[in-house]
Amino acid sequence: MRLLEERIKKDGQVLGQDVLKVDNFLNHQVDPDLMAAMGEEFQRLFKDKKITKILTVESSGIAPAVFAGLSFHVPVVFARKHKSLTLQDNMYSATVYSYTKKVNNHISISKKFLNADDRVLVIDDFLANGQAVEGLLSIIEEAGAQLEGVGIIIEKTFQKGRELLDQRGIQVESLARIAAFEDGQVVFLDENK
Amino acid sequence: MRLLEERIKKDGQVLGQDVLKVDNFLNHQVDPDLMAAMGEEFQRLFKDKKITKILTVESSGIAPAVFAGLSFHVPVVFARKHKSLTLQDNMYSATVYSYTKKVNNHISISKKFLNADDRVLVIDDFLANGQAVEGLLSIIEEAGAQLEGVGIIIEKTFQKGRELLDQRGIQVESLARIAAFEDGQVVFLDENK
Repeated sequence: MRLLEERIKKDGQVLGQDVLKVDNFLNHQVDPDLMAAMGEEFQRLFKDKKITKILTVESSGIAPAVFAGLSFHVPVVFARKHKSLTLQDNMYSATVYSYTKKVNNHISISKKFLNADDRVLVIDDFLANGQAVEGLLSIIEEAGAQLEGVGIIIEKTFQKGRELLDQRGIQVESLARIAAFEDGQVVFLDENK
Repeated sequence: MRLLEERIKKDGQVLGQDVLKVDNFLNHQVDPDLMAAMGEEFQRLFKDKKITKILTVESSGIAPAVFAGLSFHVPVVFARKHKSLTLQDNMYSATVYSYTKKVNNHISISKKFLNADDRVLVIDDFLANGQAVEGLLSIIEEAGAQLEGVGIIIEKTFQKGRELLDQRGIQVESLARIAAFEDGQVVFLDENK
């Protein structure tokens, strides 16, 4: 998505070897007009699927997910994060390892909001090692719901998340695909072609 | 806002004396179309203010805030919550007591995203004792920014948050104002007139 790539070039900050900071339009300060455009793009990319529900993880997944939800006119459920694993009968839960913070987080979703009739689109801000998405997929499986696809804003193609999802035959659509960081600059996948 | 009051009557769950659970359309599962309508309503209510920025607190403030942001076409900043108070030079921070969880949370916002030129609208999902809003107001004051108003989805008028804000002469607009819970039912303020 050209608009997003331009914004990353303009406002993204590359830190070290593999961190891209986009806190001025995506995950601390949010640009709602850009978010709405991305929501419409997700709808275009997955329009042939009969999506009934959108799933994400708090906090930075919420903004992109609710705008995707607006375009599809379906409910959005966001998993809550916890420090400790508190299993409850009325919750689906999963453990998610954070490579950035080197801790296990636990995520959960009320059983009321996901069931076997649901056709689910997972939305998240970043795809790196794929841990958060894997956690949501395990919850979808536990609920017996149907995963229809994964929509990502920024994918770091050089980390293993995409490969893990491809191996499982999942349709993954990323609005910006980063091939590498070179000299503090972002190189997108299509620029390498 | 009639649409919201009807939804609360239909889907809200009153627990005990003073808790209203609205997790099926507001703060766990989100109805994006209702959220978008509420964003437009906030724009209508504060249209005479020259809002440059919207401020909220993660996580359940994010969805209403980004839709308000879409209606105003201004950036939305959400404060991050922490367990511990870690003062950093580049962050504004405040301490927020949670009556529900009986703990102090700390919230912070990067100094990059709020400054003395900003005219700020604060958005949050609930107004009860007003602690979260007070925390944001202290951050706005620290930044030297101008507070233009506070937009709330659901106000519990029988708790002290509204009074605290009224005493300071702040324009507060709540889309649903709850007067009381009676026999497990919600009574709105205008129903009492």
